[in-house]
Amino acid sequence: MSTQQQHHQLSLSPFNLYSNRVLLKTLLHHHAHDHDHGDGAVSLVGQRVLVGGWVKSSKEVKNKPSPSPSSLIMDDGFGETTRNKDVSCVEILQSRIPLVRSIFHVLGGKSYVPRKKLEHSSQHPLKAIMLPQPSTVYLLLTDGSCVSSLQVVVDSSLAQPSNILPTGTCILVEGELVKPSSEGKHFIELKADKVLHIGTVDTDNYMLSRKRIPLDLLRDYSHFRPRTTTVATVMRIRNVLSFATHSFFNDHAFIDVQVPAITTTDSEGFSNLFKVTTLHQKADKEKVNSIYETEGVSLEVVKAAAKEKSNQVENLKRSESNREALAAAIHDLRKTNELASHLEARENKTIEASLKDDKVDSSKDFFLCPTYLSVSGRLHLASYASALGNVYSFGPRFQADKTDSAKHAAEMWMVEAEMAFAQLKDSMNCANDFLKYLCKRVLENCSEDLKFVAKRIDNACFDRLQQIVSVSPEMLSYNEAIDVLRKVEDKKFETNFECGIDLTTEHLSYLADAVYKKPVMIYNYPKEVRPFYVRLNDDGRTVAAYDLIVPKVGTIISGSQNEERLNVITSRINELGLAREKYEWYLDLRRNGTVKHSGFTLKFDIMVLFTTGLSNVRDVIPFPRSYGKANN
Amino acid sequence: MSTQQQHHQLSLSPFNLYSNRVLLKTLLHHHAHDHDHGDGAVSLVGQRVLVGGWVKSSKEVKNKPSPSPSSLIMDDGFGETTRNKDVSCVEILQSRIPLVRSIFHVLGGKSYVPRKKLEHSSQHPLKAIMLPQPSTVYLLLTDGSCVSSLQVVVDSSLAQPSNILPTGTCILVEGELVKPSSEGKHFIELKADKVLHIGTVDTDNYMLSRKRIPLDLLRDYSHFRPRTTTVATVMRIRNVLSFATHSFFNDHAFIDVQVPAITTTDSEGFSNLFKVTTLHQKADKEKVNSIYETEGVSLEVVKAAAKEKSNQVENLKRSESNREALAAAIHDLRKTNELASHLEARENKTIEASLKDDKVDSSKDFFLCPTYLSVSGRLHLASYASALGNVYSFGPRFQADKTDSAKHAAEMWMVEAEMAFAQLKDSMNCANDFLKYLCKRVLENCSEDLKFVAKRIDNACFDRLQQIVSVSPEMLSYNEAIDVLRKVEDKKFETNFECGIDLTTEHLSYLADAVYKKPVMIYNYPKEVRPFYVRLNDDGRTVAAYDLIVPKVGTIISGSQNEERLNVITSRINELGLAREKYEWYLDLRRNGTVKHSGFTLKFDIMVLFTTGLSNVRDVIPFPRSYGKANN
Repeated sequence: MSTQQQHHQLSLSPFNLYSNRVLLKTLLHHHAHDHDHGDGAVSLVGQRVLVGGWVKSSKEVKNKPSPSPSSLIMDDGFGETTRNKDVSCVEILQSRIPLVRSIFHVLGGKSYVPRKKLEHSSQHPLKAIMLPQPSTVYLLLTDGSCVSSLQVVVDSSLAQPSNILPTGTCILVEGELVKPSSEGKHFIELKADKVLHIGTVDTDNYMLSRKRIPLDLLRDYSHFRPRTTTVATVMRIRNVLSFATHSFFNDHAFIDVQVPAITTTDSEGFSNLFKVTTLHQKADKEKVNSIYETEGVSLEVVKAAAKEKSNQVENLKRSESNREALAAAIHDLRKTNELASHLEARENKTIEASLKDDKVDSSKDFFLCPTYLSVSGRLHLASYASALGNVYSFGPRFQADKTDSAKHAAEMWMVEAEMAFAQLKDSMNCANDFLKYLCKRVLENCSEDLKFVAKRIDNACFDRLQQIVSVSPEMLSYNEAIDVLRKVEDKKFETNFECGIDLTTEHLSYLADAVYKKPVMIYNYPKEVRPFYVRLNDDGRTVAAYDLIVPKVGTIISGSQNEERLNVITSRINELGLAREKYEWYLDLRRNGTVKHSGFTLKFDIMVLFTTGLSNVRDVIPFPRSYGKANN
Repeated sequence: MSTQQQHHQLSLSPFNLYSNRVLLKTLLHHHAHDHDHGDGAVSLVGQRVLVGGWVKSSKEVKNKPSPSPSSLIMDDGFGETTRNKDVSCVEILQSRIPLVRSIFHVLGGKSYVPRKKLEHSSQHPLKAIMLPQPSTVYLLLTDGSCVSSLQVVVDSSLAQPSNILPTGTCILVEGELVKPSSEGKHFIELKADKVLHIGTVDTDNYMLSRKRIPLDLLRDYSHFRPRTTTVATVMRIRNVLSFATHSFFNDHAFIDVQVPAITTTDSEGFSNLFKVTTLHQKADKEKVNSIYETEGVSLEVVKAAAKEKSNQVENLKRSESNREALAAAIHDLRKTNELASHLEARENKTIEASLKDDKVDSSKDFFLCPTYLSVSGRLHLASYASALGNVYSFGPRFQADKTDSAKHAAEMWMVEAEMAFAQLKDSMNCANDFLKYLCKRVLENCSEDLKFVAKRIDNACFDRLQQIVSVSPEMLSYNEAIDVLRKVEDKKFETNFECGIDLTTEHLSYLADAVYKKPVMIYNYPKEVRPFYVRLNDDGRTVAAYDLIVPKVGTIISGSQNEERLNVITSRINELGLAREKYEWYLDLRRNGTVKHSGFTLKFDIMVLFTTGLSNVRDVIPFPRSYGKANN
């Protein structure tokens, strides 16, 4: 039994949390569990609990005009019989009974309601006439521990209704669990008798006061996002995936190695890097831009053109009138996009070159040399694999890529594994097992969250996870994949492919989504599209790399057997024109006690996307970072 | 039973690793376990296994001059009796029996030894005369899974001895587990009959060829370090601490939130930050230096003076002659150090100011605004705590601090936790439980590694861990701590203290190491020495912050209840002159549904230091980063 499951079955007492409050999931899942067995919420009713959370929705019900205190006093003893016919009044009295009881309770025990006030009202009952009309506030409270909310009933004598009614108000209350006062979907509710904390809301400026805010708008309010049911659900699932990651590797005797974020090595050899520095800096973009301008080509202009052409294509697609015009427009768009990426690559190279410029005196920088944020930890992991055997790492990796792709962010968490004495097949097996394990754990531990996902985001989520657990991926070499894609007639791809050109995400997703309708593993990639450290196959053209592609999100794991032969890796570095001196430390591992080794990278954020059915990775990262986006 | 323990008890077959090799810990712990119960290695003898690893030490034993092949052939059938008296020859024959057996085995099964070669030698036995003198190589092999090594016996006919003898050689061998051929500390050894891989060593240039390299020298070879028994042991313990961290928080229903490394917010408000950029940069140090020079004070000169004075103090201490001269020298050194830190702080401020300079056009940078590497994730965590309740994070944090302190590195991993509806006491309880849990897990899961630590690094390691598990910390307010320290007479501190000045690590350690000889928790720090977000106490002078100080390493956990009151935190920000616009997102959390919250930070690397008894944090971080040190 997992520890998560244990929690659901914990008794409410003693409270196991450091704040003494009870997590709502303990109450509501406990309840749901009982209900399944037909005995309702019986075991909870009558228990006293302390709960805290934020108001999800609320309503205030004014108590029917109550008899004035004086009339109540005068009616004492026989008034009740005369009003028995008046059902509303009886209801009011009934609804007040628990309150009265709890006031006595308070007087007998520790009192939150200031003693002075209580004494006042008992000594001077007539003062009650000056108070606003009494009401009962019904709050749906969430504390982030589960999807469900708890209904909390607060009498207006305990808290000013206008303070606690707004969505987002924080409240900590103590009270008794009771059967709901009215029929509804709630099986249990909390009758509050102490209000220990109120965190009010600045209603006019609180953006979550609005209902149903689109996810993309929420991204600019990442500090508030987890208060929405959707993002909270995503984060709970993310948490289960995170712990499952560590459990899997721990179970398989992998050592967790924290590889550095700051590095001098560019593992991929062709990435856009963030520079880490303590020196003053100057914007040299003008210089770079001017280069293009003297050549008569501006990246901005080309990009604008590409956007326009993209709109044209969309319009033509919608009109469905002229197939040839559409084909021509797509061709045109493709050419323009190619030019744009060419220019962008050149711009990046120019910046790269200017970083290498003699004028930049990195010897005065903090590390006395240029340092970057790590793109991948696999080279560093390989160093530890060459000593400890099986190792893994789980941490942030960085790419200064300006793309607006829904699958990319500047800072993403990656799970990387590396195994000594392991070959391509071993890495594939481990990657498959790992993915299956993650899906299994989510299915076992996130049933309430997945139900919400199925209802609100993507009703296929259960099937998708179940398929990973039960089905093995289709195995295809890169060349076989191209053959399959060539035969596709009912779909026109935006990018044509030739051997040696990387299959785009469009192609890969089509194989998993449309052709096989299940995970696909593509291996033996052309060496041109994989980093220098991947092991060269005997054909001299392909390398021992693979991608595991799943429906809905595409590539989720990229793996490889890495090059253990010193002479081969050295000539690969030369071939690619990489700065060999930066890789000397890695070559050292090949010079001394080299070992066959293989591993893989799972894009953790994409895994969360796959699990939750959301489409943009920015919605599953706690504080997403991307071009122009970093606001906290 | 933990999963770690389960591994020790796994049967050798089926192999659970993706590479099919058996982890040495499975063999050697299995064995050790049996041995404890007195039945030796019986259950392992005769099993065939595949093991891989790196040579730790080796010896070659030349087989006694064997009779020439022709004489062996001629003696066939009756030669044995005539040589029975010659013990050495009998030994040789005995030692060859398994080899002969395994050759037959190889011929019958899959063969690694090239068939051609075997045919040659069987068809032309006389060729054996031309081969070098046969020998037996004894390798002590380690694969990083445990401290112990396995003795592997390789006949020279399987591998060129000169290729496999050097320390650091990687070898993958198959063979049979046998009782050791000679008496010694080994209870089992592997008689190799297939050599599947050899990764040779460039002996002249392989720095680990040397014996007993000091740890500080090893730091420049972080890619090779885990091949040493010490660093491998540290990394295994680190791994257990890492998984224990996740287990603790998972068990207590905390949600793992990956807070960003790239941030616009300086959580501490007074740290040296690394800047993250994609722009070209210029060294402006000259400008900064010139400022000092015009004022007639150079940081370099002051630093040099401080070093000289430090030497003087050391000399005086050693001579023990003149107490007054020593006191004066210490005073002088302190003044010089103060000047140096003052200058350094000013230098950093100048750089900081120049970063804010109008000329730096951050609007052209990747995020269109200045971004830094995160110093602390607690503000970001507070955002998620204000929605999900209890959250934690485990990741790298950064400080561009040039100090050479043994407790500091530029990139360190931190465990941060934040709890909604929790106050100072709750955070203290959670921090204590967490620390106890970590120590308990290490004691339970790292017994072999701790034995090595006790023998080679620090024989007090068991006691230190045991004390944390069994003893509660001494609780002292900051003022009480100062009172206690004032009364100390037998120790002269390098820094004097006044109330309001942060107690130095020297003072804190003295309380834990010398006064109480156990963990000490100091709380209610003066507000000046803690960040703006810590909750102000009712006295208006102190804040609800605490440090948990343990013997040997000092502060290991820093925690606090954080300010939930908008007006108080706003005035704290103004008081400290912080750039309020950077904290608006955080203030939003206080404006809307604010909640009492508290949490703590455990310095993970310091925890590893505490556990392993090492004294420099650079020796327990896989790839340490510090001023001038980043080489991969």
